[in-house]
Amino acid sequence: MASPLNNTTTSDQEMADLERHDCVERVQWVLNTPKPPGLSQELIGTAVSWRNKVPFLNMQSGLKNELFSMLKATFPILSWCQNYKPNHFKHDLLAGLTLASLCIPQSIGYANLAKLDPQYGLYTSVVPPLIYTLMGTSREIAIGPVAVISLLLSSMVQKLEDPMANPIAYHKLVLTVTFFAGTFQAAFGLFRSGFLIDFLSHAALVGFMAGAAIVIGLQQLKGLLGITHFTNKTDVISVLKVVWSSFQHPWNPYNFLLGCSFLIFILITRFLARKNKKLFWLPAIAPLVSVVLATLIVFLTKADKHGVNIVKHIKGGLNPSSVDQLQFNGPHVGELAKIGLIVAIIALTEAIAVGRSFAVIKGYHLDGNKEMVAMGFMNIIGSFTSCYVATGSFSRTAVNFSAGCETAMSNIVMAVTVFISLELLTKLLYYTPVAILASIILSALPGLIDVNEACNIWKVDKLDFLACIGAFVGVLFATVEIGLLVAVTISFAKIIVVSIRPGTETLGKLPETDAFGDVNQYPMAVKTPGVLIMRLKSALLCFANANFVRERIMKWVIEEEKDSKLRNAEKTIQIVILDISNLMDIDTSGIASLEELHENFDSNGMKLAIANPRWQVIHKLKLANFVPKIGGRVFLSIGEAMASFSI
Amino acid sequence: MASPLNNTTTSDQEMADLERHDCVERVQWVLNTPKPPGLSQELIGTAVSWRNKVPFLNMQSGLKNELFSMLKATFPILSWCQNYKPNHFKHDLLAGLTLASLCIPQSIGYANLAKLDPQYGLYTSVVPPLIYTLMGTSREIAIGPVAVISLLLSSMVQKLEDPMANPIAYHKLVLTVTFFAGTFQAAFGLFRSGFLIDFLSHAALVGFMAGAAIVIGLQQLKGLLGITHFTNKTDVISVLKVVWSSFQHPWNPYNFLLGCSFLIFILITRFLARKNKKLFWLPAIAPLVSVVLATLIVFLTKADKHGVNIVKHIKGGLNPSSVDQLQFNGPHVGELAKIGLIVAIIALTEAIAVGRSFAVIKGYHLDGNKEMVAMGFMNIIGSFTSCYVATGSFSRTAVNFSAGCETAMSNIVMAVTVFISLELLTKLLYYTPVAILASIILSALPGLIDVNEACNIWKVDKLDFLACIGAFVGVLFATVEIGLLVAVTISFAKIIVVSIRPGTETLGKLPETDAFGDVNQYPMAVKTPGVLIMRLKSALLCFANANFVRERIMKWVIEEEKDSKLRNAEKTIQIVILDISNLMDIDTSGIASLEELHENFDSNGMKLAIANPRWQVIHKLKLANFVPKIGGRVFLSIGEAMASFSI
Repeated sequence: MASPLNNTTTSDQEMADLERHDCVERVQWVLNTPKPPGLSQELIGTAVSWRNKVPFLNMQSGLKNELFSMLKATFPILSWCQNYKPNHFKHDLLAGLTLASLCIPQSIGYANLAKLDPQYGLYTSVVPPLIYTLMGTSREIAIGPVAVISLLLSSMVQKLEDPMANPIAYHKLVLTVTFFAGTFQAAFGLFRSGFLIDFLSHAALVGFMAGAAIVIGLQQLKGLLGITHFTNKTDVISVLKVVWSSFQHPWNPYNFLLGCSFLIFILITRFLARKNKKLFWLPAIAPLVSVVLATLIVFLTKADKHGVNIVKHIKGGLNPSSVDQLQFNGPHVGELAKIGLIVAIIALTEAIAVGRSFAVIKGYHLDGNKEMVAMGFMNIIGSFTSCYVATGSFSRTAVNFSAGCETAMSNIVMAVTVFISLELLTKLLYYTPVAILASIILSALPGLIDVNEACNIWKVDKLDFLACIGAFVGVLFATVEIGLLVAVTISFAKIIVVSIRPGTETLGKLPETDAFGDVNQYPMAVKTPGVLIMRLKSALLCFANANFVRERIMKWVIEEEKDSKLRNAEKTIQIVILDISNLMDIDTSGIASLEELHENFDSNGMKLAIANPRWQVIHKLKLANFVPKIGGRVFLSIGEAMASFSI
Repeated sequence: MASPLNNTTTSDQEMADLERHDCVERVQWVLNTPKPPGLSQELIGTAVSWRNKVPFLNMQSGLKNELFSMLKATFPILSWCQNYKPNHFKHDLLAGLTLASLCIPQSIGYANLAKLDPQYGLYTSVVPPLIYTLMGTSREIAIGPVAVISLLLSSMVQKLEDPMANPIAYHKLVLTVTFFAGTFQAAFGLFRSGFLIDFLSHAALVGFMAGAAIVIGLQQLKGLLGITHFTNKTDVISVLKVVWSSFQHPWNPYNFLLGCSFLIFILITRFLARKNKKLFWLPAIAPLVSVVLATLIVFLTKADKHGVNIVKHIKGGLNPSSVDQLQFNGPHVGELAKIGLIVAIIALTEAIAVGRSFAVIKGYHLDGNKEMVAMGFMNIIGSFTSCYVATGSFSRTAVNFSAGCETAMSNIVMAVTVFISLELLTKLLYYTPVAILASIILSALPGLIDVNEACNIWKVDKLDFLACIGAFVGVLFATVEIGLLVAVTISFAKIIVVSIRPGTETLGKLPETDAFGDVNQYPMAVKTPGVLIMRLKSALLCFANANFVRERIMKWVIEEEKDSKLRNAEKTIQIVILDISNLMDIDTSGIASLEELHENFDSNGMKLAIANPRWQVIHKLKLANFVPKIGGRVFLSIGEAMASFSI
């Protein structure tokens, strides 16, 4: 009888030995990893691997082929032009004409918002769309001046030069900013550093856009109420003060009446179009119709003699060259470059967001870096031809899409139409009332305020919502720049808080599996008596949280021990397994705190084991000689750690 | 024959069904977790749970007991005093006297560095150590003025008031800064916000201390060379310019000779002590011996008549009250509070670092928050009694420890000794040469420069080393504040870069286990054909990296597919499992990028599955309605995901 029993024991023993041997071998896997790439190497590697995707550097054999493929990569129009059919052009022509009818009044209004003469808005709707058509990859995007960029430009540049007192000097500064913005955009694209435009989080953008829309709306009160002495500040309080004080003086109601009635007209057309999708062209041409009607009314009633402000002279003709107006040696160059950078990022963020959303609908991929290069060149060349910063417009792109555009050709149609108007029709706009431009801008603003998305952000993440509200309040009550700064700061502070928050969670074994889970997340998880399995809630164990985490773990262990004593559990805690699988990195303070933990546990008769370290982390622990200090108790997984203690 | 086979099949089928049923149930575990606490709740919870540990708020029954335990918690001296034995006092007396002999010359020297009259240094060695003894928990720390804080104070306060032109006004500002620093320190302790002192990473501190030591050393050239017109700036270049221009003029070599010879004397005593541990007292009393000898030499040779600068009059007597000198309404209050905050943090960082390192040696726990309260009150009361900011000194604490101190009583002995000297001996210091003070300060500086630790940091983490060097270079070539700012910025930038670096790793199954590991970290890991298992290298998927990560994964999948086609593998990739176990958080941009990935895969006939989401992440994915979009393919682990696809 003894023999089989003995046998079994031996066999069990052998099995256990074998198991242990395997376990030891697997511990060696953890400890003897190859040297990981350094963080700097990795980041440089990322940059290089993206660099290699730059079309110009991707030479293939055959000089002619090569040249043509280079040209094709730089000018995507060469690709899609080959398959361009008359049927496409029919659609693009219709879309382009619709676009132009919306674009002409908007361009004049936005130029007004940018504190430039009206023709500069029209110029900006001619050259940049043409350049973009040659180089861009989006098929729907409508290029030209937009409200937010116009506001940004005027609010920042007028701190350097007063647009009323020195319109020519102010215009030179705006052109220089345009040049810088284009250069930055092209550089971002060429160096594949498109991630820079990601620095403005979605939540921050929603708040910023809504704030900017309200600020732009308030600026329109100038035109709508015919106020002559308006403020240069953009915050709500300054603007409302001016509006309030203007009510004290006698004021002319005609401007307001004219603006409001046409605003209501445009809003009604939009309402109709929403009811019946086929009427999409109605709100698109409503602004032009309003301009024509209002101009006629003023012309016929001579209302300009009765206090209605009119646009007056618009300089006609093609964009004049402005190369000699760029200012690279003056006291403001640094400041202009800074403004250029901010404008470049906001313009790209807006354009790529709008481009992507329509590309997804039509199911094609938008190359962010190519877009940036295209936008950059269109603004650089724009700055040579009297344009200010152009980008993709939310509202006009939607109209372009609804009008059934097929390719970027619709932008060409639009540019040509605007060009013809510049040549022939500017004289007709002499009597256009300023109030009508204000109402056209106002009618485009609701699209910038996305209350639904803000609610959604609130639902998903409270801290993101804080960034959103921060940007909104900052833009509204301080300046546009402060709003941006607040949003970026909150967004990055959130990253820091989330990655170093000093928390731990207790893990338990999930029944019928080998997996371990947070006992709060998975209430069915079972703790093993005598063992405490913990996981850090932070992604880094570093100077900023190492002490806190150490004290947290100590406190937790002490409480768990008290608890198990109270429950008269058979076993008090003997082993603490620390799962560090989610630690991305550890620094000297973090290693020191682990060492201190180990010493504390050791003096209390407990053992510390480390499970599942990542590559970088185990490498650093080895460098700091931590592994021998804790008796080599580093394991591949929690399960392996448990097995090694024969639990 | 058919029957058993059939049976087996049925049984297999049943088993598989059962298995699948289990798997489905476990998917429900993942999806039906309780609602996780919000980040804000969690952070507030952390604060509250720490608040509860404040002794004053932890009332127990019994008013008398309660009061006494409150008193004991506030004044730890009441606890250790009860067990204080004569034998302890013998050790403390010896240590205290040794400490005093080092402290008196250092205090005068540091007061000089802080651009205050010598007696203020001595005052600072009387009151703060006494208060600390009542409230502090460290047994070894030696309290008093220290070099770095003296430098910080003088370099920042002299921008507001010239210490040469208006010594009284300057002194008032220093007192006010001391008050602010104390208030901040006490507040940090009371509100358990000790994590604030962790904001200066270990690496940054090493660099900062080394830079400050060199700057302090350069400042000593004034005393050592007897330069009368020194610069107020602290950067290397300004100081070396002044020194260079002073060489152009005729100069007096006596100061230099005197200072250097005694510096060499002190360094020799230190060298002897390092050779023979029993001679630890030799470098401790060497400064006092130097002062006595040098003073005697000057007195006997009348060297002060030959150009040797001497200390001259030191005001004797006990600390005068300075309550009425604090300035809370002046133009500088905001600036003074800012300086107070910086000084408070640096002082605490130094004191707690030195206190902890000795507490670890003696094996007791140092309560960081209690320490901060003690330091805070000692500086507040110090500011009422003509002291400037005191903290724990690196060099003197080491001497105190070597001299065998048992409790904080040695600080009392030291304070009493300094007090007696103030009453009786200040007249004897009239002829003390300034150069000797410079050499005493210089001799204490090498302890602040830790080249070994810098090498260690370089070895373990290159980015940490960058923070270290940034602080060093900033302090050396710009100002102390800029050095600190650079260090803090680099440290936090590192946290951001590590937690959002846009990388992915491919996982494979580790042989003989159920675990999956990075194929680069574990070269033995085996990939399953037809399945691509990926894990993010970042801790957050958010606005800043979502696009990048999405493009990375797409590129990787395309490459893997090409690769498997090249290898003529049986299966192309059909399933992409994304292990997101290390994602601490996700925001709307992150979710959008996952959705886009899913759509891309879907249109290429691949399936995306998510494995092992954390609590917060799955909660947000559910809120954003992501789970049904990917067909509910969210699993507990990679293994479960594989099982569900029957691989």
